[in-house]
Amino acid sequence: MKAFRDVVNYRRAVRKYDKDYAYDADVVTQALELATLAPNSSNMQLWEFHRVRSPEMLEKMKECCLGQNAAKTANELIVFVTAPQKWRQRAEMNAKVIRNAFASKPNTPEHVFAYYEKDMPFLYGGEGLIEYKGLDGEAGQELRRNDVRVILNKSAALAAMTFMYALAEKEYDSCPMEGFEENEIKSILNLTKEAEVCMVVSCGKRLPEGVYGPRLRVDLSDVVKEH
Amino acid sequence: MKAFRDVVNYRRAVRKYDKDYAYDADVVTQALELATLAPNSSNMQLWEFHRVRSPEMLEKMKECCLGQNAAKTANELIVFVTAPQKWRQRAEMNAKVIRNAFASKPNTPEHVFAYYEKDMPFLYGGEGLIEYKGLDGEAGQELRRNDVRVILNKSAALAAMTFMYALAEKEYDSCPMEGFEENEIKSILNLTKEAEVCMVVSCGKRLPEGVYGPRLRVDLSDVVKEH
Repeated sequence: MKAFRDVVNYRRAVRKYDKDYAYDADVVTQALELATLAPNSSNMQLWEFHRVRSPEMLEKMKECCLGQNAAKTANELIVFVTAPQKWRQRAEMNAKVIRNAFASKPNTPEHVFAYYEKDMPFLYGGEGLIEYKGLDGEAGQELRRNDVRVILNKSAALAAMTFMYALAEKEYDSCPMEGFEENEIKSILNLTKEAEVCMVVSCGKRLPEGVYGPRLRVDLSDVVKEH
Repeated sequence: MKAFRDVVNYRRAVRKYDKDYAYDADVVTQALELATLAPNSSNMQLWEFHRVRSPEMLEKMKECCLGQNAAKTANELIVFVTAPQKWRQRAEMNAKVIRNAFASKPNTPEHVFAYYEKDMPFLYGGEGLIEYKGLDGEAGQELRRNDVRVILNKSAALAAMTFMYALAEKEYDSCPMEGFEENEIKSILNLTKEAEVCMVVSCGKRLPEGVYGPRLRVDLSDVVKEH
């Protein structure tokens, strides 16, 4: 077993993978399972993890990654995607659990149920943030859309981070990428219009030269502020 | 030592903490250090972790968290914040390392240096994405601002996730929150105009009733898609 500190220290962005390594795809399978246990906004789980490993699809996807070294020699690419179109199913799933939990308590106040039955439809379903922020028309629509984008991308990032540590614990490697042809990826993976590509994570076993130099971090005092 | 699987399984959103527990703030200090090692967009490290633990500040911050149970009994609140205003310093720091690495190779093509000397200023410094997306005026400005927001929030989320697992390994608990009075928090913490609050994470030691029921996840087949 590795201490989590060692897992974090082991993980580096790897840009060249060992094609001769006896790569075990089950390590990735298990890491993806753990990624589904990441915390996420209101437990709406509005994410999908697209695992690309067939040679043809991998070739296409690597082209979408703008020729980045981090993609070129990867055994697999995992595309972490937002899935706002699933909001209704997810809200209903959560609402049902809460209704069941309070089924024997007929005097439960309605606000207990409001979160998934009113607030989530308000946020994801339409005009929510427009009213909330006191804006209307196209400006409001755009604001709502962008606030939801931020929320969904944060949750997908939490899953991607979980995934990368799960790999690192097994001394498998990864590189998170944000530079890609998003529309091309959406077309290749057959994603819906609403979906957004949060991150593409390449996977494999590092070669020593796949890590570009020592880690570079600013002073802790520039990041951690005490109050 | 815990397997990472056990760390992930241990971590739950905790909404009631044990005020009588012999809480050791060093566990949080060390977890924050590890969080700075999270991957982040272009290694720009445009984040700050505001640690709120003085009784007066904690009281104010809890009010900003809209009376959420997850904040009320916490020993500390960590505010993960984006720091776009630091882009120039960070780009220069990274550029210098690359210039030094290639100092003995006078024929290095300029594109090797372009990433931090041209592309990052292009993205963070001003008109970048406007030109890139072929838009101008206010619409372009807004688009750029929102794309940068997404990028920065993703990176801050990667750090927050790292932090929560570092706590979980030590059987310390957390709850990530996205519902808060952002402007109030920015005022209390004296943040710059450009900063955004990505997430507030409460910390403490769980009480059994602090975990609301068993974990609820959709079928893996609804999340992991094979290509």
